[in-house]
Amino acid sequence: MATKYVYLFSEGNATMRELLGGKGANLAEMTNIGLPVPQGFTISTEACTQYYEDGKINDDIMAQIEEGIVKMEEITGKKFGDLENPLLVSVRSGARASMPGMMDTILNLGLNEKVVEVIAEKTGNERWARDCYRRFIQMYSDVVMEVGKKYFEKLIDEMKEKRGVTQDVDLTAADLKELADQFKAEYKAKIGTDFPEDPKEQLYGAIKAVFRSWDNPRANVYRRDNDIPFSWGTAVNVQEMAFGNWSDESGTGVAFTRDPATGEKKLMGEFLINAQGEDVVAGVRTPQPISELEKVMPEVFEQFQEVCKILENHYHDMQDMEFTIQDRKLYMLQTRNGKRTAQAALKVACDLVDEGMITPKDAVLMIDPRNLDTLLHPTFDPKALKEAPVLAKALGASPGAAAGKIVFTAEDAKEWASRGEKVVLVRLETSPEDIEGMKSAQGILTVRGGMTSHAAVVARGMGTCCVSGCGEIAMDEENKKFTLAGKEFHEGDCISLDGSTGTIYDGIVATQDATIGGEFGRIMAWADEYRTMKVRTNADTPKDAAKAMELGAQGIGLCRTEHMFFEADRIAAFREMICSDTVEEREAALEKILPMQQADFEGLFKACDGYAVTIRFLDPPLHEFVPTDEADIKALADAQGKPVERIKEIIDSLHEFNPMMGHRGLRLAVTYPEIAKMQTRAVIRAAINVNKEATNKVVPEIMIPLAGDSMELKYVKDIVVKTVEEEIAAAGVKLDYEVGTMIEIPRAALTADEIAKNADFFCFGTNDLTQMTYGFSRDDAGKFLDAYYETKIFEQDPFAKLDQIGVGKLMKMAIQLGKSTNPKLHLGICGEHGGDPSSIEFCNEIGLDYVSCSPYRVPIARLAAAQAAIKQEATKVKSAEEKVEEAAKVAEEKISEAKDAIRTATKDISEKLGIFSKNLAIEAVKFTDAAIAGVKTGIEEASKQYDKK
Amino acid sequence: MATKYVYLFSEGNATMRELLGGKGANLAEMTNIGLPVPQGFTISTEACTQYYEDGKINDDIMAQIEEGIVKMEEITGKKFGDLENPLLVSVRSGARASMPGMMDTILNLGLNEKVVEVIAEKTGNERWARDCYRRFIQMYSDVVMEVGKKYFEKLIDEMKEKRGVTQDVDLTAADLKELADQFKAEYKAKIGTDFPEDPKEQLYGAIKAVFRSWDNPRANVYRRDNDIPFSWGTAVNVQEMAFGNWSDESGTGVAFTRDPATGEKKLMGEFLINAQGEDVVAGVRTPQPISELEKVMPEVFEQFQEVCKILENHYHDMQDMEFTIQDRKLYMLQTRNGKRTAQAALKVACDLVDEGMITPKDAVLMIDPRNLDTLLHPTFDPKALKEAPVLAKALGASPGAAAGKIVFTAEDAKEWASRGEKVVLVRLETSPEDIEGMKSAQGILTVRGGMTSHAAVVARGMGTCCVSGCGEIAMDEENKKFTLAGKEFHEGDCISLDGSTGTIYDGIVATQDATIGGEFGRIMAWADEYRTMKVRTNADTPKDAAKAMELGAQGIGLCRTEHMFFEADRIAAFREMICSDTVEEREAALEKILPMQQADFEGLFKACDGYAVTIRFLDPPLHEFVPTDEADIKALADAQGKPVERIKEIIDSLHEFNPMMGHRGLRLAVTYPEIAKMQTRAVIRAAINVNKEATNKVVPEIMIPLAGDSMELKYVKDIVVKTVEEEIAAAGVKLDYEVGTMIEIPRAALTADEIAKNADFFCFGTNDLTQMTYGFSRDDAGKFLDAYYETKIFEQDPFAKLDQIGVGKLMKMAIQLGKSTNPKLHLGICGEHGGDPSSIEFCNEIGLDYVSCSPYRVPIARLAAAQAAIKQEATKVKSAEEKVEEAAKVAEEKISEAKDAIRTATKDISEKLGIFSKNLAIEAVKFTDAAIAGVKTGIEEASKQYDKK
Repeated sequence: MATKYVYLFSEGNATMRELLGGKGANLAEMTNIGLPVPQGFTISTEACTQYYEDGKINDDIMAQIEEGIVKMEEITGKKFGDLENPLLVSVRSGARASMPGMMDTILNLGLNEKVVEVIAEKTGNERWARDCYRRFIQMYSDVVMEVGKKYFEKLIDEMKEKRGVTQDVDLTAADLKELADQFKAEYKAKIGTDFPEDPKEQLYGAIKAVFRSWDNPRANVYRRDNDIPFSWGTAVNVQEMAFGNWSDESGTGVAFTRDPATGEKKLMGEFLINAQGEDVVAGVRTPQPISELEKVMPEVFEQFQEVCKILENHYHDMQDMEFTIQDRKLYMLQTRNGKRTAQAALKVACDLVDEGMITPKDAVLMIDPRNLDTLLHPTFDPKALKEAPVLAKALGASPGAAAGKIVFTAEDAKEWASRGEKVVLVRLETSPEDIEGMKSAQGILTVRGGMTSHAAVVARGMGTCCVSGCGEIAMDEENKKFTLAGKEFHEGDCISLDGSTGTIYDGIVATQDATIGGEFGRIMAWADEYRTMKVRTNADTPKDAAKAMELGAQGIGLCRTEHMFFEADRIAAFREMICSDTVEEREAALEKILPMQQADFEGLFKACDGYAVTIRFLDPPLHEFVPTDEADIKALADAQGKPVERIKEIIDSLHEFNPMMGHRGLRLAVTYPEIAKMQTRAVIRAAINVNKEATNKVVPEIMIPLAGDSMELKYVKDIVVKTVEEEIAAAGVKLDYEVGTMIEIPRAALTADEIAKNADFFCFGTNDLTQMTYGFSRDDAGKFLDAYYETKIFEQDPFAKLDQIGVGKLMKMAIQLGKSTNPKLHLGICGEHGGDPSSIEFCNEIGLDYVSCSPYRVPIARLAAAQAAIKQEATKVKSAEEKVEEAAKVAEEKISEAKDAIRTATKDISEKLGIFSKNLAIEAVKFTDAAIAGVKTGIEEASKQYDKK
Repeated sequence: MATKYVYLFSEGNATMRELLGGKGANLAEMTNIGLPVPQGFTISTEACTQYYEDGKINDDIMAQIEEGIVKMEEITGKKFGDLENPLLVSVRSGARASMPGMMDTILNLGLNEKVVEVIAEKTGNERWARDCYRRFIQMYSDVVMEVGKKYFEKLIDEMKEKRGVTQDVDLTAADLKELADQFKAEYKAKIGTDFPEDPKEQLYGAIKAVFRSWDNPRANVYRRDNDIPFSWGTAVNVQEMAFGNWSDESGTGVAFTRDPATGEKKLMGEFLINAQGEDVVAGVRTPQPISELEKVMPEVFEQFQEVCKILENHYHDMQDMEFTIQDRKLYMLQTRNGKRTAQAALKVACDLVDEGMITPKDAVLMIDPRNLDTLLHPTFDPKALKEAPVLAKALGASPGAAAGKIVFTAEDAKEWASRGEKVVLVRLETSPEDIEGMKSAQGILTVRGGMTSHAAVVARGMGTCCVSGCGEIAMDEENKKFTLAGKEFHEGDCISLDGSTGTIYDGIVATQDATIGGEFGRIMAWADEYRTMKVRTNADTPKDAAKAMELGAQGIGLCRTEHMFFEADRIAAFREMICSDTVEEREAALEKILPMQQADFEGLFKACDGYAVTIRFLDPPLHEFVPTDEADIKALADAQGKPVERIKEIIDSLHEFNPMMGHRGLRLAVTYPEIAKMQTRAVIRAAINVNKEATNKVVPEIMIPLAGDSMELKYVKDIVVKTVEEEIAAAGVKLDYEVGTMIEIPRAALTADEIAKNADFFCFGTNDLTQMTYGFSRDDAGKFLDAYYETKIFEQDPFAKLDQIGVGKLMKMAIQLGKSTNPKLHLGICGEHGGDPSSIEFCNEIGLDYVSCSPYRVPIARLAAAQAAIKQEATKVKSAEEKVEEAAKVAEEKISEAKDAIRTATKDISEKLGIFSKNLAIEAVKFTDAAIAGVKTGIEEASKQYDKK
């Protein structure tokens, strides 16, 4: 059967999100549960994928759209281009996941010179008709044909000036007719052809524009940031128009069933009287709060409240809705689970549990771990805040604290940020083109727009602080300056924003660390209950370790000892070590470092209070530590009593062509075993010391980096173990310890069976493993990765999201091989992927014991690990069911074989005996049939038992 | 049962080489076939391994040695330290493979102050007794205790001077007694203890010295060069002495059954009258040719000739023997398959086939492919040779032609060579310490020593040209100069050596290429018959390609196009391409290069005459091509009409931290598809052009380097295919072509199933694959690899010998995965491993279709591929046999199960029927027993049938 590409709203439902997109599936669902939805059809995401394959809308899809139009015309009793009862529609994109950056809505499609006359006359509402037409031309030109909005806005401004009015609504029908003519002339000037009069031509233009918008640069950036594959495609929704601009008893709005900023359970939202949807979202006119609707149209408000209740109960989640009122009649245009701030997400989840609407497990699954990041960002230091000069107060559109230098364009934001500057992006209003700039900014401040303006919605999604609608600002974007509270601000001047209160401060206000508690704490406690993987942290200092422990870390998964060597008080000794000519010189320098390292480790052990601490031995190539300027070189030479020339020679000799693949990791321990010995002594002495007084004893884990060969690892491990045993014997105490290795070289994974014989644990260093597996270095890949994203060779940065296909295969091999020779082997990950939710899910799946990530990602990892465990449990149940089925099938086959064998045997025997052959065979078959029936019953019974569990 | 570590010669045989070492196994074999061998025992290689494990000779081994001594005493009727009939022995090392660089022989062990008196008196040959004693002290001190030979030689020289004699043989018994005393004093001065008097202490000292010598630096270097693992260990041979220094009717010698230099079938060798073995090998005295023995002791000579015949017939190979004559009685001390020059190896193999002693298959297996290299080295240009001033003529000890600068020490040879100088090492004589220096030299010239001197033997093994025994040289090693033919030569002066004729020329004589023919051709023809893998070549120019085809290559496996860009006439255009700011600029520059590339490819296609030509697209990072000096930068700027600053900016932007993992390979084609398009056009146009006139049409193979991801490969492949099709369409012709990729990134191997969907062939780039898999770059690994060899973490350079465990596993995965989605996929290798015999064997095993190597390695690869095929066939037969056995075992189990099942079924059925149960069961069991017997017979019959094949 041919693929079905076009679905009437009445043919779909909420579970069909993958095929119909979120918007389409929910329009169908609302239709099904009897809510007032203007009817229409959805062109499926598969049609979009097919469009990209064919490079056009193929005949099959075209035919199905035509059929959809016919059905829609039947349902509405209207016809495209009809001069009696013309059909007007909106066209909207709708992907599986809500996705800013894609095509804007097109409204009023179906209008042309004749139709506009007809509806003006038939409705007696000429101004409305003319307004619809000029809007349509404007939107179609902008969205479908990419003629910039600004050309049309300029014409409107000129018209308003000519007529001496300031508001759009003050323009008359005649003005709007004239404007429409001007718009069409503008269109022809820019495009070269007349504005399309044929509604179907308009419709196909709009559909193709939706498909195309799936591949625009903004959409691609958003997808990359949000793990959305290009292959998903977008659906297109074609829906009969309801007109919010019909009259002053009409309007349009958006609303949330709960406060998307705080999660508080109260209806939130905004509406505009006598307006169409884009007026609200664009933030051009500042809308009224939804509560005002009660005053204007109480019966509509009541109906809307009822709808809200129905939807929340139906979806078990906070809803974000779009609606239109035409002549006091309510139409629902969209509902979806509302985007919310991280804080709101926690509160909503907890409230829903308390309201009995969902289980704690559902609550844990409901929170996007990536959003927790916001809550872990610093807030303003209250003391600093007291002194801070307030410039103004506007809408707190996305919480958080931001302080930085002012920039006026998205490009500047991106560029300044790339230079390491912290910037605040100040705009009249933002648009999808600004997304990359918004990502680069600490905070966003807009002059126009409400809580649901583009800036506000996008900033909340990103977890970036945003203050919107600050009308007090006198903006001069062209000259990159603005005036606020009587002061002129230029590019590079400093301001601070409080995204929760909407307050704007002059200058930089100091910030402080976030804390975890309340709903955050509740969710985390549930998460800890469900997760099976431990979460450790990557920390090199007692301070970081303490912070991570506070955030729920279960010890340290990676302490990079080299970071300690960079500190001022030891770099000198470390350089002496490097510039040694003999082992004795090297040992003398190391002797100086030993007590400092020991003190470092004591601090870490204390901070972790008995939790595991994994200490990675010196990893980077030595040339990273040597001095580069003459004075430092001279100082080093003097300290060692060597000529400057000799030191320079040594430094030169350290040069490497490919440092990433050079003399580093355990290769340093092979060439300079005395370094490993010193580090071992420091670890063991520190552990012995700390354990003397500690209740919870530390079991230090020594981690040897960069192993690629079992003999190589054994060589270094033997040195470490020998040194450990010497230290323990000298101290006359007992100490448990482990020696393991990082798996970060492909060969280590490939030969993990041998490697595991010399390791108590494996810790996957997926940063390096990714580099080696792909054969590109992170430092250099920037030169070509952009081209890879543009051509969609890559949709994800493999350094951010673990490559499960290639790198993941190596990890699975390493685990399987490693456990085969060392069943006690324990397993972790300490690459940056250890803090990435989708990678954490993979780690859970392949059986790691822990993930290790930076302190502030610990809560994210805890939540992600819990979600992974819940999902895996579900998968396990499913696969167990499948296995039972499989087993039943195999059993049946075996039985059948056995039956044949018995038949044959019986036959042979009876033939041989030459008597009773027939009876014997009949009896044998009966017997085996009975046996088979019994086995079958047994399997069915077992399946049922399993299902109960 | 306890391991047996000590074997009497009578307990071993030639097949026990792994356990007894080559020397021990052959001493046993000679004993078995009744040749005159002084008896003794062999301490096994396992004892050596155990010694390294325990760090000492353990009690068990010690006990077995004691037992061996007792048995030896019984056999010989002599006793260690006995004053009536003292036992004197030699102690020799003997590994599985003959291995220079290990311990020298110790003779006359068992002597002490008392014993020497006894034997002097009993034999009435005091001079002999005293000579033996001083020799023993000297050897023991040198070899076991590492007191340098030179101290003793100095004492001898002083003694000779005092006595006014020039030859050792002119010293009297009294002189020698005095010398022995001086030697012992020297020993005490150096070691601090008295020279050991106890023969057993002497013996254990010598045994340990043999074991230790297995791990000395020279042995380690040799092992690495010859693929000998440390784990093999060495055996120790303890053998009763036969005394070549007994009288003037005694002597010692070495001989080959055929000429080891030419392979000619005639007895070759040398002997010294009244001497012990080390006198011959050391080259201190110049020996007589073996033919002279006939004159001196005709009956001994005749007996020896008979022994030679027996041994050759027995071993089916040319033998290298050591013998001693004591008082006209012949003793065989060693036989082994003789080392020979490559030329001799070919001749011997062909002769043995012609003599009916071996099959052509045996002949192919007999040649070490690595040795062919020598034959492919250039020889002197006969024209140049005519003009060349001859300095002298000495022994042509190892064939080949060498020309270079004179150096006087092994260290200098190594150091000069590392600077790229071609050197000739000139020495009085060489010793095992010189091995590394000898490897670095083009040729070796010695003043002393014959065809079997250390220099000659080692040089032949290495395939290095050597002229020995040039007594005309007046050497002044200390001042690094010598005089020859009246001319003084200093370090850095030039000479040339002809290792075949022994001629020494003044200055540099021009050389010319080698050719293949005669026996070489016969062996190659046999090899081609047996091998299943094709051999291609890595060639970038028509000249190289033609040479390779001449040497038997079957097309080109790797043409590195980038080498073409470096040529003077195109580097300018190529740099313009790199420094383009727009696609148009880049295309314009590429347009200039296109015809040149096309011409290159036409040349290659013509040279290969229809054989496959694989062209790899641009691979190295672009910064390798940009100018570095100001003038070139200026020229480039002018050519492009750009400011110098802009060019510098572009050059700077190309800098990479890790170029090996940077913007290179197909990554260049992703960012600059126009480069791939240009190269595609050049390939296709060239192929079309050449095919117009060619009888054998070329099928060009376009190879895309560095793929790591299937989407990435698909992207570039699509560009290539589109361009190819355009070109073919434009030309209106037919052309077959292939597009494939290199597998050189671990991820490509891991995801080869996906990769293979977009590739007609895989070519393993094992240079890069090794780098990425190990995570170290070849350019940087030198910094730590020495430490890896020293610590025996690595025994082999993974860039020279393929790492079969790690890299090999990736290769196997890639093949298995690739073939699973693309069964037509063809497979090759073009890393340097493609010319390494042991790696070629692996490639054959895993199923590659071809190997590709540099032109001069093509014959080596052909031979290695043949050997691999023969060995694999043998393995297959063996594993098939094993499978039959396995199947028989499984069948038996199944039958037994079936028997049980039938029994049970019969029992159940008869129970159910309630009649004839006993009879039925008995009958059933009989029936199944008969069936089982039948099946068994069938299996046995099948096995027999298989064996016949």
